[in-house]
Amino acid sequence: MNPISLRTGLRVVSAEALGTGALVLAIVGSGIAASRLSPSDVGLQLLENSIATGLALAVLILILGPVSGANLNPVVTMLDTLGHRRNRRGLLRASAIVLAQVVGAIGGALLANLLFGEAMAFSTTERGGPGVLLGEVVATTGLVLVIGALVRTGRTAHMPWAVAASIAAAYWFTSSTSFANPAVTIGRMFSDTFAGIAPASVLPFIGAQLIGAAVGAAVVLALFPRHPRPNHP
Amino acid sequence: MNPISLRTGLRVVSAEALGTGALVLAIVGSGIAASRLSPSDVGLQLLENSIATGLALAVLILILGPVSGANLNPVVTMLDTLGHRRNRRGLLRASAIVLAQVVGAIGGALLANLLFGEAMAFSTTERGGPGVLLGEVVATTGLVLVIGALVRTGRTAHMPWAVAASIAAAYWFTSSTSFANPAVTIGRMFSDTFAGIAPASVLPFIGAQLIGAAVGAAVVLALFPRHPRPNHP
Amino acid sequence: MNPISLRTGLRVVSAEALGTGALVLAIVGSGIAASRLSPSDVGLQLLENSIATGLALAVLILILGPVSGANLNPVVTMLDTLGHRRNRRGLLRASAIVLAQVVGAIGGALLANLLFGEAMAFSTTERGGPGVLLGEVVATTGLVLVIGALVRTGRTAHMPWAVAASIAAAYWFTSSTSFANPAVTIGRMFSDTFAGIAPASVLPFIGAQLIGAAVGAAVVLALFPRHPRPNHP
Amino acid sequence: MNPISLRTGLRVVSAEALGTGALVLAIVGSGIAASRLSPSDVGLQLLENSIATGLALAVLILILGPVSGANLNPVVTMLDTLGHRRNRRGLLRASAIVLAQVVGAIGGALLANLLFGEAMAFSTTERGGPGVLLGEVVATTGLVLVIGALVRTGRTAHMPWAVAASIAAAYWFTSSTSFANPAVTIGRMFSDTFAGIAPASVLPFIGAQLIGAAVGAAVVLALFPRHPRPNHP
Repeated sequence: MNPISLRTGLRVVSAEALGTGALVLAIVGSGIAASRLSPSDVGLQLLENSIATGLALAVLILILGPVSGANLNPVVTMLDTLGHRRNRRGLLRASAIVLAQVVGAIGGALLANLLFGEAMAFSTTERGGPGVLLGEVVATTGLVLVIGALVRTGRTAHMPWAVAASIAAAYWFTSSTSFANPAVTIGRMFSDTFAGIAPASVLPFIGAQLIGAAVGAAVVLALFPRHPRPNHP
Repeated sequence: MNPISLRTGLRVVSAEALGTGALVLAIVGSGIAASRLSPSDVGLQLLENSIATGLALAVLILILGPVSGANLNPVVTMLDTLGHRRNRRGLLRASAIVLAQVVGAIGGALLANLLFGEAMAFSTTERGGPGVLLGEVVATTGLVLVIGALVRTGRTAHMPWAVAASIAAAYWFTSSTSFANPAVTIGRMFSDTFAGIAPASVLPFIGAQLIGAAVGAAVVLALFPRHPRPNHP
Repeated sequence: MNPISLRTGLRVVSAEALGTGALVLAIVGSGIAASRLSPSDVGLQLLENSIATGLALAVLILILGPVSGANLNPVVTMLDTLGHRRNRRGLLRASAIVLAQVVGAIGGALLANLLFGEAMAFSTTERGGPGVLLGEVVATTGLVLVIGALVRTGRTAHMPWAVAASIAAAYWFTSSTSFANPAVTIGRMFSDTFAGIAPASVLPFIGAQLIGAAVGAAVVLALFPRHPRPNHP
Repeated sequence: MNPISLRTGLRVVSAEALGTGALVLAIVGSGIAASRLSPSDVGLQLLENSIATGLALAVLILILGPVSGANLNPVVTMLDTLGHRRNRRGLLRASAIVLAQVVGAIGGALLANLLFGEAMAFSTTERGGPGVLLGEVVATTGLVLVIGALVRTGRTAHMPWAVAASIAAAYWFTSSTSFANPAVTIGRMFSDTFAGIAPASVLPFIGAQLIGAAVGAAVVLALFPRHPRPNHP
């Protein structure tokens, strides 16, 4: 590996760690602020949490897109690798990125605890049940559909606000409040606050996300065939 | 019908079913979440519901536009057919699309019930009265005006956020909370929750929407004449 | 006047009446809905009212811009006339537009009353006092600055969302809740609800708006000189 | 100094004073309105305050960008000067701009007091502690990262909404509510209301902001190297 591609690789991995960390900081931090400042209405807390999350996510995708593609989500990295980099080098790249996302996500949760003076403790918020897990499948299906549709129609300039809008909306219409991101799910274990998730609930959530990713990818392939060329002989 | 146009047709119909379904899921699902989480203020529930609806609608129009035009609404399909496809083939196409929209809408409501563990039951929320039905006329007039203005001035790139903004605003300023969509109205019968509508209220709503569609189309024709060519001999 | 320019003129006047009417409908209608649905928190009412107003205003400017310039405000029409059409014909045009705006505004308020079953009555909400009137000066100064800055830097494509954002924000930071529009102020007399203004308060408001318009125009001229051509001999 | 560059310089300084003043007016004014109108929920107050701030900030950057670059923040002016104008003339320019920002910020706070009939008094709201000051470091790091990323990738057209979104989000996820601006921090001393900060808390805040600025600049340099030219001989 030559020094230039090493430097580029370091930038990609740093951007994914930083971006996923900042995303989890935004989710967990705004969740703490919302639950402290609006103690009497959980819906208002979720409104505050979803608005802050959406705005932060849009900005992070916008600024980190040119560095790393701003995946910020192992599901996205996985599908990107399956689609465009299906080789040993691609697999190594994906592994490094996913590791960076997970490390960043945990760091973001710990930083949120620090900023708000919360104890460092695992979340005790159990999340699950068939409706919630199905919600998580739907959330991830939707996220993959949004990203795939924009990629395959050459309109990635819309990515930041479209992804942000779909996640902010899905906070409300999926019963799981739309985690839709394995790294973020792992990170959210590390704060026993509004946005946390108990460790025992994490694996089923990630399972549901992987199912949603597969469903989403199938829908993208069906609705957005690449290069249809109907008149090509 | 050759296999390529069949495949394209299937994609159009699937996109309209999926998109209208996702829209109703967003409306009904966020309505359930809002009414559960903000039990003491109906206005706050509607704020949460209208924000989630607007964001979801913008994203759906953005991603499905290239596949099917993202009508997601029989009124839009009907006016598009009257304007550009006034023939037997166009009528068949429109019928298939409207059927897909209605099926998708019902599916979206049922899926929302499933995600949130709500019983499968018809809505018992009666909506009607002269003020509300007039509100529905106004809401549909406005929606048709927004879409028609952008189409006839060649600015359809603004469609996603403009339609989303107009619907989210109209949730508030029309007394009907702006259904403005016959397929969505039918779908919303199938959930006895915040966003539901009792079956007996559906036909008058659809009647009001059709009147609004006609009024809106007349306003579009008057304000946005196509190809005026004032200096053409 | 030949038939073509008459038809164009009718479209301009109709667009201004329709647009200003729809704006007042959005303001007054969402005010009624907000105060009914969120009875226990006036701030929440204003949040709902300001969001609905901003979204409606953005869409109206977007769709009516190509027809009439989407002034929707006598202050804007007046300054546009002073700047670009300082002749008898321009004065006639401006008078017709302002009349249309006022008639539309009143119609919008009456329609809001009708939709929500409110009595037709003048507002009894007195608004005034030095702080509030100064707020109205500031609000109109700001609005003129936003519009003038975009016009004089050739970036009118930003007008819809920039004007909407500035009005929605100014609902909060001016003590007058930012009417900033003589036609809308007159229209809001005609509904004794959340967004209404008592007839006796209207003239001082309009006076403050005219002062704000003059201040705003002066700031625009100072900050955005047209054609500076520093190297022109 | 010739008369033309003097006139241009005056416009730059006026724009920075006006813009920073309007920003503080929006922050302090909407804070006063929010705390009066939503007395029973501090979170709702912050939601109203953060939305108004974000919308005002977007518009101010949009309209003043062509005049002065719309720094509106000594941290931004300082980094811009260090990066592009590292000479005596640049230092003079920066000093004049920062002075204008501070004067404008104080004026904005006093105007907010005037509009809402608040006494002219220093704030008594003490803000500080390790978590809050670390929050302020994070907030300023983030702001500098957003601005630097857009500048160094040639996408400054995204600046208005990206900066606005990041500040509105950071109100929620930093424990300091994201002042991230020394001039605004000084201005907010001058109002004993929701958005105020006690004089004794100001210096630590500014210190934290300067640390955040340095961290942010380092991240920008690492992630967005200028002119990498990997294949240049």
